[in-house]
Amino acid sequence: MARIVKKFGGTSVADMDRIRNVATKVKRAVDAGDQVVVVVSAMSGVTNQLVAWVSEASNIYDAREYDSVVATGEQVTSGLLALTLQGMGVDARSWLGWQVPVRTSSAHGSARILEIETAELEKRLSAGQVAVIAGFQGIAQDGRITTLGRGGSDTTAVAFAAALNADRCDIYTDVDGVYTTDPRIVAKARKLDKITYEEMLEMASLGAKVLQTRSVELAMRFKVPVQVRSSFSDEPGTMVVDEDQIVEQADISGIAYTSDEAKITVRGVADRPGVSASIFGPLAEASINVDMIVQNVAADGKTTDLTFTVPRADLARSVKVIEGLQGELDYRAISTDSDVVKVSVIGVGMRSHAGIASRMFTALADEGINIQVISTSEIKISVLIASKYTELALRALHSAYQLDAT
Amino acid sequence: MARIVKKFGGTSVADMDRIRNVATKVKRAVDAGDQVVVVVSAMSGVTNQLVAWVSEASNIYDAREYDSVVATGEQVTSGLLALTLQGMGVDARSWLGWQVPVRTSSAHGSARILEIETAELEKRLSAGQVAVIAGFQGIAQDGRITTLGRGGSDTTAVAFAAALNADRCDIYTDVDGVYTTDPRIVAKARKLDKITYEEMLEMASLGAKVLQTRSVELAMRFKVPVQVRSSFSDEPGTMVVDEDQIVEQADISGIAYTSDEAKITVRGVADRPGVSASIFGPLAEASINVDMIVQNVAADGKTTDLTFTVPRADLARSVKVIEGLQGELDYRAISTDSDVVKVSVIGVGMRSHAGIASRMFTALADEGINIQVISTSEIKISVLIASKYTELALRALHSAYQLDAT
Repeated sequence: MARIVKKFGGTSVADMDRIRNVATKVKRAVDAGDQVVVVVSAMSGVTNQLVAWVSEASNIYDAREYDSVVATGEQVTSGLLALTLQGMGVDARSWLGWQVPVRTSSAHGSARILEIETAELEKRLSAGQVAVIAGFQGIAQDGRITTLGRGGSDTTAVAFAAALNADRCDIYTDVDGVYTTDPRIVAKARKLDKITYEEMLEMASLGAKVLQTRSVELAMRFKVPVQVRSSFSDEPGTMVVDEDQIVEQADISGIAYTSDEAKITVRGVADRPGVSASIFGPLAEASINVDMIVQNVAADGKTTDLTFTVPRADLARSVKVIEGLQGELDYRAISTDSDVVKVSVIGVGMRSHAGIASRMFTALADEGINIQVISTSEIKISVLIASKYTELALRALHSAYQLDAT
Repeated sequence: MARIVKKFGGTSVADMDRIRNVATKVKRAVDAGDQVVVVVSAMSGVTNQLVAWVSEASNIYDAREYDSVVATGEQVTSGLLALTLQGMGVDARSWLGWQVPVRTSSAHGSARILEIETAELEKRLSAGQVAVIAGFQGIAQDGRITTLGRGGSDTTAVAFAAALNADRCDIYTDVDGVYTTDPRIVAKARKLDKITYEEMLEMASLGAKVLQTRSVELAMRFKVPVQVRSSFSDEPGTMVVDEDQIVEQADISGIAYTSDEAKITVRGVADRPGVSASIFGPLAEASINVDMIVQNVAADGKTTDLTFTVPRADLARSVKVIEGLQGELDYRAISTDSDVVKVSVIGVGMRSHAGIASRMFTALADEGINIQVISTSEIKISVLIASKYTELALRALHSAYQLDAT
C-alpha cells in the first residue's frame, strides 16, 4: 500500500471521455490498495475562456475578482471527477481550495501556499476515500479565493504530496516523460528514466514546459519523488528525484532551448567603472530581468560594447529605459535582435567532469554556428545563437554528448 | 437614498455586452445615492451545460458534487460584474454564498436559506460599496456548497432584501412585468402596476414563470416590496406588495394556465367510506402530488368515478400505483388524459365579491368549452379543460373579467 498524489492537467480532463479515463486510472490504484489524492486542472480551453471574459470586463484589474472567476474551472472538474469515480463504485469527494483549506499568501494571481490543513483528509484517506482536489487555488487570510498562477496545479499536487507525506506524486500530462531534448526537433531524443530536481529545475525554467518551476522547487525542498508520465498510456514516465538516488550519472542529462529572450547591444559606452551598474540598475528598477551578459572592449580601447538578453516581451520597454539614459551614458548606438535562441546543456555530472563546455563549443563550431553570448552555472552551460540554427545546434549537441537513442 | 436589491437573471447577463448593460443600471442607482446589492444568475446556457456534464458523469447522483459544479455559473458572473463595475469607477466586490456566508439547510439541490450574516455587508454598503452576490447558492453546516434549486437566485435576492431591510427588491427579467395573462396568447393582456403577494404566489405556481414561488413566499413573509421589471428598458415594472397597499382592488387580477398536469379517472369504484383514502394514501406515499379532485356517483348508485390530476411527469408512475391497488379496490377501469390544461382566475377581490365563479362558468359555456374538473381556493378558481381550448378560454375570460387593455 502506498499513498500517491496524482495530478491531471487540462488536456487529460478535456471532456467527459477523458475524465472517465482518469477515473479508470484512479480506480486501478484504489483497487491495488493505494490511498489516492487526485489534483485536477480545468478542462483545457476553459481557463482561457474565463480569462478572456475577465479581460473584456474591465481594464482595471482586480486580481481578487480574477481569481474568483478563474478558479471555477478546477471547481467544475473536481466535482465531475468525484461523480465519475462514484459512478464506478469508488468512494470519492471533491475539495475546493477554501474547503481543505489550502491557506495561501494574498498575492492574488500568483499566491504561494503557506499551509495545508490535512487532519480531515488524513482521516478520510485512511478510511479509503479518494480526495479529488481542485488544483491551482487556495484561500487568503481575508477569505477571498486565490490562484497560484498558470500551471499552479502542479504546485498544488506537490504541496499536497509533501503535506500528506505521500510516497509519490505522479504528474500526468500529454507527454510520456522528460526527454533529453525536444523530440519534435531531435528524432533521436530519449525519454529519461530519472532526472535530478536541480536538472529538472533548469529544464523547466529553460522552456521544457513539462512541470511548473515552482512545483519542482517545492519537490526538491521536501524531497517529494515526482513522476512525469502520460495520461494516455500506462508506461512508467520519468522520475524526478534527489541526486543521491541516481547511481550512474551521465555528464549531461538534457538539452533545453528557449526563444523567449531577445538580445540588446549597447555600443560605444565609455569603459569606466560603474558603467554596468548605470545600465542594469535602471532595468532592474523597471522589473526587467536581465539574463546573459557579455562585455567587450572596443577596438579603440576607450569604449566598450555591452551585450545582454532580456525577456522578449520586455524588449521595447528595455530599449525605452536605455534611451532614457543617453544623456548620462553617452553611448554610440543601441541594436537589438529577437532572432536568437538560448540553447543550454544541463547535467549535475558536469560538476565532476571536465571538458563539458569545450565539447559544446567544438560541436557548435564544427557546424559553423556562431556563439553570441555564453553564460554558465554549476550544472548548466547556455549559449545564445541565431534562431535559424536551433535544430542544427540541438541535433549536433545531442550527438556530441552521446544522448542519441540507439 | 434607498437601499435596493437588484436581481438579474440568466438572459440579462448572457454575455459581456449584457453584463455591461447591467452595470450601467447599477451605476445609475449608485450615482443617485442608493445603496445597491446585486444578485446575479449564471450566464444563460451555462447552468444547462454544467448540468449536462454532471448527468454524463454518473448515474449515481451525489447532490453535494452537483451543487459544487453547478454553483460555478453564478461565481463567474459575480466576478465579471464586479470587474465591470470597477471599470466604470464603481466600488464593488463579489460575494460567493460561502463567503457571506449564506447558511442553508443541507438539502443539496433545493436547500433552504436559514440565515444570512450581514454585519460585514452592512458596513461596506454604508461605505458605498456595491455587493455583487452570486445567487442560487449557500453553504451547509458541514462546509459544502449548496444550491437552492432552479430559479433560486430570486430567492437569494428576496432573502438578502429581507435580511438587509432593503426598501425594494427589483427582479430584472426578460419580460417587463406581470401581465393579466400570457401576452403571447392574449394580445389585449395588460401589464399590472401592482399585484398582491398572494395573487403572485398563485400566478407563479400556476405557470406564469416570472418569479420562483419560494421567493414570493419569502417576500410575503417578510413584507419585502418586490418589483418585476425588464433588464432591457427603464420602464417601471409590476410591484408585488401587501394587500393593504392596493387601494382599488379589481375582482380578478390575472388569469394563469398550466399544461403540467394530467387527468386520471378511476371508474367503477365501490362507493363506500375510505375509498378516497385508499387511493390517495398510496399516491402520497409515492410522493405524487394530487391536485384537483372530483368524485361522481355513477348511474348505478353503488359505484363511483374518481377523477383527479397529477403532475404530467408522474402520470405513468401514478397509473402503476393504482394498478397495484386493483385487488384491494376492485375498480372497473382507469383512463388517463394528458391533453388537458388548467386555467385559473386569480384575485384577492373575489373574497369580497360574489358571482366571480359563475361569470367564469358562463363565459366558458358561451364558448362551448366543457369543464372537466373544478377546484377553488380563497382567491382562485381553477378549471380543467381540453387543451385545444386554451387560447379560446383565456381570451374569453380576459374579456369577461374586463381585463382587456383599451
